[in-house]
Amino acid sequence: MERRQFITALGVGAAGALVAGCQDKTPASAPAQVAPAKNETFEWKMVTSWPKNFPGLGTSANYLADTITRMSGGRLKVKVYGAGELVPALEVFDAVSQGTAQMGHSASYYWKGKAPAAQFFCAVPFGLNAQEINSWIHYGGGMELWKEVYAPFGLIPTTAGNTGVQMAGWFNKEINSLEDLKGLKMRIPGLGGEVLNRIGGTAVSLPGGELFTALKTGAIDATEWVGPYNDLAFGLHQAAKYYYYPGWHEPGSAMECMINQKAFEQLPEDLQQIVMTATRAATQTMMDELTFRNAQALDELVNKHGVELRELPQDAYRQLRTLSEEVVFEQAKQSDLTRRVYDSFIAFRDQIERYQSISERAFLNGRFDTNFKAQ
Amino acid sequence: MERRQFITALGVGAAGALVAGCQDKTPASAPAQVAPAKNETFEWKMVTSWPKNFPGLGTSANYLADTITRMSGGRLKVKVYGAGELVPALEVFDAVSQGTAQMGHSASYYWKGKAPAAQFFCAVPFGLNAQEINSWIHYGGGMELWKEVYAPFGLIPTTAGNTGVQMAGWFNKEINSLEDLKGLKMRIPGLGGEVLNRIGGTAVSLPGGELFTALKTGAIDATEWVGPYNDLAFGLHQAAKYYYYPGWHEPGSAMECMINQKAFEQLPEDLQQIVMTATRAATQTMMDELTFRNAQALDELVNKHGVELRELPQDAYRQLRTLSEEVVFEQAKQSDLTRRVYDSFIAFRDQIERYQSISERAFLNGRFDTNFKAQ
Repeated sequence: MERRQFITALGVGAAGALVAGCQDKTPASAPAQVAPAKNETFEWKMVTSWPKNFPGLGTSANYLADTITRMSGGRLKVKVYGAGELVPALEVFDAVSQGTAQMGHSASYYWKGKAPAAQFFCAVPFGLNAQEINSWIHYGGGMELWKEVYAPFGLIPTTAGNTGVQMAGWFNKEINSLEDLKGLKMRIPGLGGEVLNRIGGTAVSLPGGELFTALKTGAIDATEWVGPYNDLAFGLHQAAKYYYYPGWHEPGSAMECMINQKAFEQLPEDLQQIVMTATRAATQTMMDELTFRNAQALDELVNKHGVELRELPQDAYRQLRTLSEEVVFEQAKQSDLTRRVYDSFIAFRDQIERYQSISERAFLNGRFDTNFKAQ
Repeated sequence: MERRQFITALGVGAAGALVAGCQDKTPASAPAQVAPAKNETFEWKMVTSWPKNFPGLGTSANYLADTITRMSGGRLKVKVYGAGELVPALEVFDAVSQGTAQMGHSASYYWKGKAPAAQFFCAVPFGLNAQEINSWIHYGGGMELWKEVYAPFGLIPTTAGNTGVQMAGWFNKEINSLEDLKGLKMRIPGLGGEVLNRIGGTAVSLPGGELFTALKTGAIDATEWVGPYNDLAFGLHQAAKYYYYPGWHEPGSAMECMINQKAFEQLPEDLQQIVMTATRAATQTMMDELTFRNAQALDELVNKHGVELRELPQDAYRQLRTLSEEVVFEQAKQSDLTRRVYDSFIAFRDQIERYQSISERAFLNGRFDTNFKAQ
């Protein structure tokens, strides 16, 4: 049966699922069979967990909405709402699930209370970096599992950005061992927060927009946020002195785009393809931008603002890994689904570590160790 | 003046340049002003430097063509031609420049004879990895220079894929020092080939499809191609025993999509946006796929085919870097334009190295050094 006939036979809903599926698997090599563009127009709301226009995060949501609107020639207009404009930052999931908005731009680890397995599709301590998590989700079996996790909520998930390796956070004292983290009240979400609790700290979850004031007033002792560009934008260097790396807790946090399934199924096939392709472009574009701006912001933080850059002590780093291992494995015990997500994630990491040791890691280490100086 | 008025005032050509420019810079946060979809249809040819449907490279060209066709609802149909089908592998540049085809999918270092600066937008020995070269081109100033390099040929350049860090190549003897490379006839294109010549080897340039036979018959002594997935597809492990890493000569080769400028300017704005966004999606998707398939292929090469995996000796690696430095710097002397491209590239690398040392590199090293074992 030809693809077009197949779609017609199953109706629009099945076609939607098919297109969404196509996005993750092998690019089709046969000439596309496509329906002619329709004249029906759509207006969608995109709710986000970021302050409106916030550098890197909010602007990536803007890019996604704008790209969809432009590619569709205005047939699908997407309007972006910053955190709190339509719904609060951490109610994006419910708003899209219930159809208050058709799309959301957020981070899936915020939804661990509703779906514990969701965390694996954003950030896992000592897990996957940006290159790896995108590969796991879109080719290594992650997407099929993510769809299974979100299906009960009427949501279609996909990635739409990545922060890259984050920073370990801002502290007002030096961290010489894990002892120094005891008693610390720190903003650190997701599984990283569970690790801090196990050390004897207190993890709290706050939206980004509240971090500066909380740190400045002493409501929290320390915080992580994202990386140099985003942290500089919030002025966190004015509230703490020491800036630690690397971000063991979030080695490449995937931004998620969630779509209300019913709304997606109402789109003709070309608009469905436009939406899904725009999320792929947004993933690439956010990394391109953040890589450049993080490098610039790091120089500014160190050279202009005198920030004290510190590497986590190796012993502490090793202990954090052992604790992270325990915490992440406990997620696997929650249900058959979290176990399957965990197994897929860990098997992918084992395989990718072998490859990275002879590719990205080997190259980066070689480039540095030869102490090249530009002429 | 509003954007729409501005476009109307300058005519279609200026609008095309404007859209292409938008792709590289800050995502617009204002609601898009878009013209309604038009009913005119277009049929484009895409010529490529890869065997038709070749894993990773040919299939990425297919993905790009297919995505454009689907997103446009068939208003812009793109047909892919493998190497030799319409024009030979290394005549893609001329074919698109002259309008024989409207698009090309290739690698810009093939055109060093026509435009020496083109090499910087694909691969530079000890240069930038995939994350970095995408960031340099799209945010760090690279794109403005690349447009300047291609403008005399009537071509609009952009990226549409990346191979990631390549492998150093296939050899029939162990490489214990640079002495072992003397007298070696090796397929290695671009600036890496210049470095081999300086050592006393002989660099030759051959299209991928000819490598297996050339190596098997002894017409060449050694070859590099891409990475485990692509190399396995050509069966190179059946023609050589030793597989060396890391790929110092191509740390993250950008695939290019070149577009005939006149053809692009004839498209309405929504189709222009569709074409440029599809190239962004293709870049992300190729890396997602290759990362996964390279990891799988590496295991297969080592475990099933008994390939001897070897790291380049540290002394040889350092000498290769020194020679690479010389060769790359010589490019800068060719013209004012190559000098400006070189300066931009090297300045970006200096800044990004500072950031990578506390982000990707620090994380990957930490993850490995803690010797995590999955439960």
